[in-house]
Amino acid sequence: MQQKVVVVGAGLCGTLLALRLAQRGFQVEVYERRADMRKTNMSAGRSINLALSDRGMRGLRLAGLESDILPLIIPMLGRKIYPREGNAQFMPYSGRDDEWINSVSRGGLNVLLLDKAEGTGKIAFYFETECLDVDFAHKSMRVRSAQTKEVRVVDADVFFGTDGAGSAIRQTMLSESARLRFNFSLQYLTTGYKELEIPAGQGRTFQLDKNALHIWPRHGFMIIALPNLDGSFTVTLFLQIAGNPGFESLRSDTEIRHFFTEYFPDLTELMPDVLADFRANPTSSLGTVKCYPWQVNGTFLLLGDAAHAIVPFYGQGMNASFEDVVVLDGLIDKFGPAWAKVFDEFQTVRKVDADAIADLAVENENEMRDATADPVFQLKRKIELQLEQNYPDYFSKYSLVTFREDITYHDAMVKGRKQDDILMAYARAAQSMENVDLKDVLQRLKALQ
Amino acid sequence: MQQKVVVVGAGLCGTLLALRLAQRGFQVEVYERRADMRKTNMSAGRSINLALSDRGMRGLRLAGLESDILPLIIPMLGRKIYPREGNAQFMPYSGRDDEWINSVSRGGLNVLLLDKAEGTGKIAFYFETECLDVDFAHKSMRVRSAQTKEVRVVDADVFFGTDGAGSAIRQTMLSESARLRFNFSLQYLTTGYKELEIPAGQGRTFQLDKNALHIWPRHGFMIIALPNLDGSFTVTLFLQIAGNPGFESLRSDTEIRHFFTEYFPDLTELMPDVLADFRANPTSSLGTVKCYPWQVNGTFLLLGDAAHAIVPFYGQGMNASFEDVVVLDGLIDKFGPAWAKVFDEFQTVRKVDADAIADLAVENENEMRDATADPVFQLKRKIELQLEQNYPDYFSKYSLVTFREDITYHDAMVKGRKQDDILMAYARAAQSMENVDLKDVLQRLKALQ
Repeated sequence: MQQKVVVVGAGLCGTLLALRLAQRGFQVEVYERRADMRKTNMSAGRSINLALSDRGMRGLRLAGLESDILPLIIPMLGRKIYPREGNAQFMPYSGRDDEWINSVSRGGLNVLLLDKAEGTGKIAFYFETECLDVDFAHKSMRVRSAQTKEVRVVDADVFFGTDGAGSAIRQTMLSESARLRFNFSLQYLTTGYKELEIPAGQGRTFQLDKNALHIWPRHGFMIIALPNLDGSFTVTLFLQIAGNPGFESLRSDTEIRHFFTEYFPDLTELMPDVLADFRANPTSSLGTVKCYPWQVNGTFLLLGDAAHAIVPFYGQGMNASFEDVVVLDGLIDKFGPAWAKVFDEFQTVRKVDADAIADLAVENENEMRDATADPVFQLKRKIELQLEQNYPDYFSKYSLVTFREDITYHDAMVKGRKQDDILMAYARAAQSMENVDLKDVLQRLKALQ
Repeated sequence: MQQKVVVVGAGLCGTLLALRLAQRGFQVEVYERRADMRKTNMSAGRSINLALSDRGMRGLRLAGLESDILPLIIPMLGRKIYPREGNAQFMPYSGRDDEWINSVSRGGLNVLLLDKAEGTGKIAFYFETECLDVDFAHKSMRVRSAQTKEVRVVDADVFFGTDGAGSAIRQTMLSESARLRFNFSLQYLTTGYKELEIPAGQGRTFQLDKNALHIWPRHGFMIIALPNLDGSFTVTLFLQIAGNPGFESLRSDTEIRHFFTEYFPDLTELMPDVLADFRANPTSSLGTVKCYPWQVNGTFLLLGDAAHAIVPFYGQGMNASFEDVVVLDGLIDKFGPAWAKVFDEFQTVRKVDADAIADLAVENENEMRDATADPVFQLKRKIELQLEQNYPDYFSKYSLVTFREDITYHDAMVKGRKQDDILMAYARAAQSMENVDLKDVLQRLKALQ
């Protein structure tokens, strides 16, 4: 256990990993490009709240943080859908009472992890120290201090690359791709996003239901809102970058105001600063990173977004990263710090699941943005909810992916897709709930197995 | 026409493009990382002969080089297949007498293009001058002289990135991918390759049929050989890198010798230096690069391998690059030097064809390596040859891709795959040529349309 272990990146995944490795007795050094977020006011420049669900919770539990997280999270029991015309509709995530997802502040969670990691006394943090590149043969990396601009070489026995979607370690793999036969793919959606805000009401009250993820689906684009502890909601507009409507066609104040009042009149009343926010906040892209192998020489391993950055439409990015830590931890249990074996097994086991949630996330844009406003899809969800209420063994695709941390993403995807095909066809034929025979549906679904 | 046009890369595609642009009246500057190959002895570090077919020939014809190329090429009328047991078999590429492919030296062709380009008097070549990166906003690039190490900035109105599979311009696009929504994918095969040689016999004689592409298919790996003007053959071993047999398991002299005498006994007798060549020549990887967009701001355009590097199994890499020049030239005819329009149209039209030949090339490894030794596939090819001999309107997938430069790669792929499905099923059922009713086959194929 006298090995020197380096973690690159003190984001959510890297800090949880460092904490867990320290708990296992390793001496860990963590290098982070940004400043210590506990000492500065900066946001991480990323979406400021996230959906935490069972797979992520399992990672926190592994590190003993199950109760620490409770004050930081707001349960979201379902989607509240605001159609362009007609009344809002609440659609629970599950027909079971104990299945929901949680809104959590990225910053708040990261600070908790940093505090707990530091509390072990076994982790040295080097903030504002950027990993420039790595040297696979010499088991080292070059880092540069933001303050002194000094570049130095860090040696270690093993390096974990949790440095996010723009990973420097992955970049080195790519620059040596022919030798490593490193496969890499980066695919952007035509959709971009921009963050906005619904401020808290008088006395920190919530201006919408606190315990829901709110969606305004508008066929081709949408707005979503997640609750924050302070009574505000983080609002995200997902919209084509080109096209009309599209971010590039929203230029003048008039165009921007008209877009919101035309498509989101009630919501816009809750966002007095929408125009200023729209101008001030960047329009960001949404991309999927896939790559393989994730490890080099049994010495360098990518985890989290560095290995598999995904789009946010399944709310699983952080959860998948935390699950990486759980899977890795299990392999250390099994093989000890025989890193070559651990890393090889990790990538073999985990790649298929990372690909699955990446693909599910891309597909789910359509579900959130368009299908939630579609009567057939709404009926399908009602059938699923009744199935889940009446048959505890039944789990929808969403439930398999989100609440069943004992089932891999890949298995959840395969089973869930088959179920969806059957249920959508059934809902299309049935047209309304009164024509649905739940037992008949269940038998069709059971025939799948 | 007083625009300053820069071409990055003086390989096959870049030099043909520069020549064509000069012929159209543009003043062109060409920047090339390597030394002028006419003044040095170095190989381009790449496979030393290539298959030139109709699409490539069309590019050379466009630049008026149709007769210049003739002394440099050796017609290959078909594949000569050497099974592990039994006699060698010649399988023509087409049932028509005027359809064949040509072996050409990469270096010889490149020198021809450089000489012709220089002869226009309108092209300034800067050899040993590497493009480091580009600045999209300022329409410039940074180049470094290999001799003086000096870095300078080159401005231009328009930049063509023909700097190959490792393109620096594409690398800049990737580093700004989020802003450009630049999609990128690099996928390696598990197969690698190594070049070897069959030397010329006494008095520059050819030790195998001169007018064939020779294949030793060995189920999972293969050797191929293409003729050179000097009587030698360039031999390429395609083999898994890992695995057994695999490049990584061929370490000792005994292992290497045993591999060749075991699987390729007759061929090995023609390669007295096989062990030395095996040791001296690198094992190289085979990758496919796909990306999009290919253009930025109507100022920078990728062409050839920079935009779409493909594996060599369809013999279409150079042909696809030359066809890029033909397509671009047609768009300049249509729109003039309205580069934004030309580039946008180019990538829209051409991307689908580049993807098609990339996918066909990956699939064709299996055809060359395994199917050529399969009796059903051999019968399928015999049926196709008879169809082509008897019905001039019929073109096999191979013929559509290779000889029909009037049909796009994409259309050739779609039609060819459908034909293949029908013919393989027919051949499997027929078992031998005497059971084949050509008219019946043709009717089934015609039903496709």
